[in-house]
Amino acid sequence: MTTTLSPLEAEHPLRAGLHTERSAPPCVLVIFGASGDLTRRKLMPAIFSLARAQKLAPSFSIVGVSNSPWNNEEFRRQMQQGVTEFCGGAPDADTWDDFARRMHYLNGNFEDPALYRQLAGVLAGLPGVGGNILFYLATPPSQFAVIVGQLGRAGLADQGDANPPPTASQAGDEATPQEGEGGASDGPAPEAAPPQGWRRIIIEKPFGRDLDSAQRLNQDLHRVFREDQIYRIDHYLGKETVRNILIFRFANGIFEPIWNRRYVDQVQITVAESIGIEQRGRYYEEAGALRDMIQNHLMQVLATVTMEAPVRFAAGPVRDEKVKLVRSIKPLAPGDDPRLLARVAVRGQYGPGFVNGKPVPGYREEAGVAGDSQRETFAALRLEIENWRWAGVPFYLRSGKRLPKRVSEVAIHFRRPPVLMFQDLAAEGIDPNVLAIRIQPDEGISLRFEAKIPGTDMRLRSVNMDFNYGSSFGEPQPEAYETLLLDAMLGDGMLFSRYDMVEAAWALTTPLLQYWESTPVPDFPNYPAGTWGPQAADEFIEQSGREWRRP
Amino acid sequence: MTTTLSPLEAEHPLRAGLHTERSAPPCVLVIFGASGDLTRRKLMPAIFSLARAQKLAPSFSIVGVSNSPWNNEEFRRQMQQGVTEFCGGAPDADTWDDFARRMHYLNGNFEDPALYRQLAGVLAGLPGVGGNILFYLATPPSQFAVIVGQLGRAGLADQGDANPPPTASQAGDEATPQEGEGGASDGPAPEAAPPQGWRRIIIEKPFGRDLDSAQRLNQDLHRVFREDQIYRIDHYLGKETVRNILIFRFANGIFEPIWNRRYVDQVQITVAESIGIEQRGRYYEEAGALRDMIQNHLMQVLATVTMEAPVRFAAGPVRDEKVKLVRSIKPLAPGDDPRLLARVAVRGQYGPGFVNGKPVPGYREEAGVAGDSQRETFAALRLEIENWRWAGVPFYLRSGKRLPKRVSEVAIHFRRPPVLMFQDLAAEGIDPNVLAIRIQPDEGISLRFEAKIPGTDMRLRSVNMDFNYGSSFGEPQPEAYETLLLDAMLGDGMLFSRYDMVEAAWALTTPLLQYWESTPVPDFPNYPAGTWGPQAADEFIEQSGREWRRP
Repeated sequence: MTTTLSPLEAEHPLRAGLHTERSAPPCVLVIFGASGDLTRRKLMPAIFSLARAQKLAPSFSIVGVSNSPWNNEEFRRQMQQGVTEFCGGAPDADTWDDFARRMHYLNGNFEDPALYRQLAGVLAGLPGVGGNILFYLATPPSQFAVIVGQLGRAGLADQGDANPPPTASQAGDEATPQEGEGGASDGPAPEAAPPQGWRRIIIEKPFGRDLDSAQRLNQDLHRVFREDQIYRIDHYLGKETVRNILIFRFANGIFEPIWNRRYVDQVQITVAESIGIEQRGRYYEEAGALRDMIQNHLMQVLATVTMEAPVRFAAGPVRDEKVKLVRSIKPLAPGDDPRLLARVAVRGQYGPGFVNGKPVPGYREEAGVAGDSQRETFAALRLEIENWRWAGVPFYLRSGKRLPKRVSEVAIHFRRPPVLMFQDLAAEGIDPNVLAIRIQPDEGISLRFEAKIPGTDMRLRSVNMDFNYGSSFGEPQPEAYETLLLDAMLGDGMLFSRYDMVEAAWALTTPLLQYWESTPVPDFPNYPAGTWGPQAADEFIEQSGREWRRP
Repeated sequence: MTTTLSPLEAEHPLRAGLHTERSAPPCVLVIFGASGDLTRRKLMPAIFSLARAQKLAPSFSIVGVSNSPWNNEEFRRQMQQGVTEFCGGAPDADTWDDFARRMHYLNGNFEDPALYRQLAGVLAGLPGVGGNILFYLATPPSQFAVIVGQLGRAGLADQGDANPPPTASQAGDEATPQEGEGGASDGPAPEAAPPQGWRRIIIEKPFGRDLDSAQRLNQDLHRVFREDQIYRIDHYLGKETVRNILIFRFANGIFEPIWNRRYVDQVQITVAESIGIEQRGRYYEEAGALRDMIQNHLMQVLATVTMEAPVRFAAGPVRDEKVKLVRSIKPLAPGDDPRLLARVAVRGQYGPGFVNGKPVPGYREEAGVAGDSQRETFAALRLEIENWRWAGVPFYLRSGKRLPKRVSEVAIHFRRPPVLMFQDLAAEGIDPNVLAIRIQPDEGISLRFEAKIPGTDMRLRSVNMDFNYGSSFGEPQPEAYETLLLDAMLGDGMLFSRYDMVEAAWALTTPLLQYWESTPVPDFPNYPAGTWGPQAADEFIEQSGREWRRP
């Protein structure tokens, strides 16, 4: 990682900007679940884009592992289809051939120790990668413990001596959990050479389904890998606008002074989807909006928006502040009184309705869903952060399926001016300032403020100051997976979920999950597809004299 | 003046905005200097626009007075040409005829008492105006004292009993100067009926040419008119973006908290003109950039940007705060040490050069200008405001002729973030935030901030959040004179210069004027036409490690 300043930039730093060029060290990517949807749709297109942008080392290689009866050729053929479909058309033949040459496939059962011995052999035969191995578990979470245990037993998690655990100042005090019980010493295969290079592992959500299961998963992982080797992916953190939030807050002098309870009236974080549950009825019946979106994505966005300034812009310090933030959130049901939960949260389930003018079925009519399902497809929460910066400011989080549009945004609603000197204009008539950070689509930032309408009369109106990512930068935005894969290869865990953050978010939400799952709702479905959720969600926010923003 | 809210607005106040509709009470406008350029180019087009927009009473009338041997018909014909030329084409015949019917002309010598008796007769013959008379002195300043004295002697400044002096709370303690010595009781013409309605007088700059002459002018005015009857026009204050500054500051909750020395590093106010002195060489030889622009327009803009919140949004309280602000500016040469002046101000004079690719003559080659003229066509000042809000923040003001472009703006440069947590990016490499209020052309507001350039690398760049008046509002902007004439008819002096403000601004600038006029410059001309002023101006600001913004 180097900071370079071209002669052009030195002349005109404003135009060219500051620069930190990054490319990956030599390594092998080992994908478990290589024949699955995620690999074809997301991972391989992202890896190919990185290769095309010359971000990968010449020796970079991929080993795909799954139980599909493929060979190298079939694997390469399948992946070429994925890249063609999701990477903007068929790749240039030379580029593809060079890329495909580095792809290898291994067929086997994840529970079979022989598979891991085979894998060790394949890895030993890949020259020039310095022993650096990045494992990617693109499998159902039920496989995580099995694969991780086998990797440990096969010695594949053992790192070279040049990769000691990070010091507290690098990773933060919270970054080092209790030592795993077995760990890397749990029987390396006798034929293995002394380990070289680093070993890292990326896993996909869900990271448990409540606090207990999340803690068990972390224990399983920590038996084999140290926390600094584990990269829990939350693709929301790889989105450009989310990555920009910390820059926006801390590379500018004028926002941080008003980023607190004295000036902020409320914050609304919305992740709205217009799609339903697609083909994932069986998954969604086990998940719901709270688990699927709020416990992870919205909580990460909330922490990014509200955390204190970190000691440094690095994985340890940034994640320390995020965990602190989540731990500062007031419990949803203090004293374990479940009746309090009804006051801070609302759930909904969509019935039949119309989206984009087309009729769509209700949730209970979707494939794989019970006809009397109690699963929530919409959830809204009011949170309070009990620290000096935010005490008393309500944070409204909501997410739902089959809402009128696909939009994700953070809206900081500021207080009105304390007095209004305009005699003929009542203060209540003035709209408060709103800073809206649009995460998707139309990524950008807009600031609503009051201005005078041109004319001899004195009339005020709200107007927007706008910044649009797309039109302001010629460069296309990378897919979140590109950023995150490159970060993992570089050993930068900043945009990944640390175990303590995952557990803190589960600790907050688990009482609500349990309450909802134990208390049936008589009025489901309670919102038609294509509307902004149940009426109860409006009444919920109106209790405080506020209303939901229509993003 | 009423506040109305249409049913549409009540439904959607955000869209329609808050409303204060204003139209003028019945009155007569008496223009002295009615055959001059100002009347034809500015006043009559503005009055006609107000009439067309139905802002004037049906009985509204105009009496033009000058020494040109015109009659009513010739006056109307000349004014029709002016309206056609400066009001977007020939007016609709019916509209014009209705308007022209209200126009009267009086030919005479301003020093002749008979002219004022004639005027009184004409005014007495205009029905339905309730005795309300607005005088407009569109004459050279040398005529002000003569005309005002004659108006007083003719009893034309006497108001009806229903127009008492304002109370202190309406006009502010500072608004009532010492009583004039002669005043309205100085001999009304014996034939005059008891006065009815109000009398007001608008005068055009220059309001003196130094502190002494300004004080004399104010004394001359106050012998006949009370301060609340006097409207000193500064057309900069009628511009939409200048009027919006107070709204921007005080109808929004988020700017005022950072509008102080803790967050602001420096402020630059620029009024740049690409034109030279046109046909006004003789005027400009007597004036110069400091008198012509900085003492009035820039000082008013500075006060609007930096004043404390007024008690109310009304003429007295707003002007009280502006005067306080100007009086808080540190004297340019404390202890009357003229050597200090060289450290806080720079002057320049343009030589031959190129503007928009065309060769243009130097100032000394312009008609009416001495071949060895020492008059400055560029001036730059550094001011300090000695109050709790602004102490230590430098305010850079500059104005010049024959600069590369026509542009007026206020740029608030904020401090950089106090620390920068981005390891690989040096804090000095981060551009500070700048809020730029563009007064002309392209009226609008933009906020410069740092953002991440899309991509897997960490690169920052300055980008702008923009608000543009033209594209945000469908409605055309009124000319400053429309706003100001309507305000004067309504008795609203907020956008006019009060005597104490004028004198405070002269008190500040007069020592510098005297120093410059007594100290010849060996290196004039010191900037070529079409450049951003003399090199000394760059060196001047670079002393503090800052640089001029290129607006």
